[in-house]
Amino acid sequence: MEHPYLMFLGDVQDQLAAKTCDGIVQWRSEWCVGQFRLPGCRADVRLTDMTLAEGLEHGAKTLVIGVVNSGGTMPEYWTATIVEALRLGYDVASGLHARLGDFPEVAAAAEKYGRQLFDVRHPSDHFKTGTGVKRAGKRCLAVGTDCSVGKMYTPLAMEKEMKARGMNVTFRATGQTGIFIAGNGVSVDAVVSDFVSGAVEQICPANDSDHWDLVEGQGSLFHPAYAGVTLGLIHGAQPDALILCHEPTRTHMRGLPNQPLPDLKSCMELNLATAQLTNPAAKFIGVAINTSLMESAAAESYLADVEQLLGLPTVDPVRTGVSRLIDNLV
Amino acid sequence: MEHPYLMFLGDVQDQLAAKTCDGIVQWRSEWCVGQFRLPGCRADVRLTDMTLAEGLEHGAKTLVIGVVNSGGTMPEYWTATIVEALRLGYDVASGLHARLGDFPEVAAAAEKYGRQLFDVRHPSDHFKTGTGVKRAGKRCLAVGTDCSVGKMYTPLAMEKEMKARGMNVTFRATGQTGIFIAGNGVSVDAVVSDFVSGAVEQICPANDSDHWDLVEGQGSLFHPAYAGVTLGLIHGAQPDALILCHEPTRTHMRGLPNQPLPDLKSCMELNLATAQLTNPAAKFIGVAINTSLMESAAAESYLADVEQLLGLPTVDPVRTGVSRLIDNLV
Repeated sequence: MEHPYLMFLGDVQDQLAAKTCDGIVQWRSEWCVGQFRLPGCRADVRLTDMTLAEGLEHGAKTLVIGVVNSGGTMPEYWTATIVEALRLGYDVASGLHARLGDFPEVAAAAEKYGRQLFDVRHPSDHFKTGTGVKRAGKRCLAVGTDCSVGKMYTPLAMEKEMKARGMNVTFRATGQTGIFIAGNGVSVDAVVSDFVSGAVEQICPANDSDHWDLVEGQGSLFHPAYAGVTLGLIHGAQPDALILCHEPTRTHMRGLPNQPLPDLKSCMELNLATAQLTNPAAKFIGVAINTSLMESAAAESYLADVEQLLGLPTVDPVRTGVSRLIDNLV
Repeated sequence: MEHPYLMFLGDVQDQLAAKTCDGIVQWRSEWCVGQFRLPGCRADVRLTDMTLAEGLEHGAKTLVIGVVNSGGTMPEYWTATIVEALRLGYDVASGLHARLGDFPEVAAAAEKYGRQLFDVRHPSDHFKTGTGVKRAGKRCLAVGTDCSVGKMYTPLAMEKEMKARGMNVTFRATGQTGIFIAGNGVSVDAVVSDFVSGAVEQICPANDSDHWDLVEGQGSLFHPAYAGVTLGLIHGAQPDALILCHEPTRTHMRGLPNQPLPDLKSCMELNLATAQLTNPAAKFIGVAINTSLMESAAAESYLADVEQLLGLPTVDPVRTGVSRLIDNLV
């Protein structure tokens, strides 16, 4: 997926619908030349509004559809914009559930103008099954008590800090927003179950001995719907280092009102036991807590309590930064 | 998938290539009217050889392709037989990796004659994600130290015995041979990872309080390639009872020479801990050992040792039968 990107916001009706675009702009603002909005759009990712032609003048190579339309389908007038972008020379990348190539006029335009379509939710590669064979290079994986607790944010914050320290490091994306941010990767939850660990082995392959892959986590071993995805990811990532991610105000597993969250110690133990199958040297090197819904004093005291309980550097990547995680990783 | 079946063996060159047919004949001989072989076939599942027309006269409704062709593809002359079967009024069910509908002449014939094609390796349903919500009825799941250690055979042997005792019981298939034997089911290793536990919830739904689903197991929590499949299966099955399956002469995990097998106690502990996420009352009720590669005296002494070690009824479904597992289940 080539950058720079022009961000397509369509005419979505609230900011939450542009969550993926927000994430891309937050972590790769230097790749985002502007935003393209249709009349009536109520989202704004704080980039300069541009036409498709203006985006090209600013060097954009890919039009990124990083929004969720209500109803999940793509309206006719979005398609017209996409076809026009392809005609002008853009590749188009989409985070929608629907595949771009399933719209006949989009497929025809990509073919006619020789442009590429990327559906980041739909893996296009063929994967082998995992081997578990030890490979060179070092890998750090974010795991968590639940979905959406910082398993993308934390490795991205670590990547930034490690690059600033001159370290040899790569963020490895396993979900759609992460893929736009990395420019590549695989949505592991969309991979056929037999090939999940193999796909992860493929996206973070053997590397230099001083190189760190920071692998985006998915789901949780304690989520009844997605734990299998998480386990395949853990085994494929073969992590040397694990980070535990948690959101302390969560009262139940995401989407499942009857499913309680695991306690932090049990969560660490099961993640560690399973990680040691493919890397017996795996260990936790820190904890990342999302305290965004807590008052400052409560947050500080919570971080201190967890640090005491688990005996590991405990940070909030937003509130405190991740330096202490890197210090411990080194 | 309607039975009776006519078993298509093509012209495969050894008995191992007909493993799926062998399993179907072993467990559902009453559904199998005969075998159809092409010239040069070297496999034999010990059914009467029949033409397609003779199969129909004996009531066959579905032509079952339960063989693996060398190279994995389907030769032209197999296609001709399948088209002829569709013309004569058969549905066709295949365990091949290739999809029947991807052969244009097969797809056209199915359409023309109004017959159904079943690709048991390729789930056709749309699944929801799992919920983990407790449902009625009782479920027993086979788990194991590795792949191919008896996780289909054991529940099938239990089903037979439980039916003989007049119990309310159903075998639930999660792999291709099992699907032919059950007449339905889902190849869970071919399901997109996000939907594995949801698919399993769907194939063994809520049932009468005295009803047992005996769920075919897949993979192993200790197999670096497939553990994620196994975990999704465990969470979706929500088992009340677990059976541990093992093959004692295995020196490494199937297909992975460098990966050792887990010890039986660790294997039980991890399976139990993960099963309790969706059913806190889950427990092991017995052990099924495949001692087919051991001498009689060694096998007996091994079974006694495991029984002593784990404190659970330990059987070889072939050598000793599964009565003691059912006794403990009850």
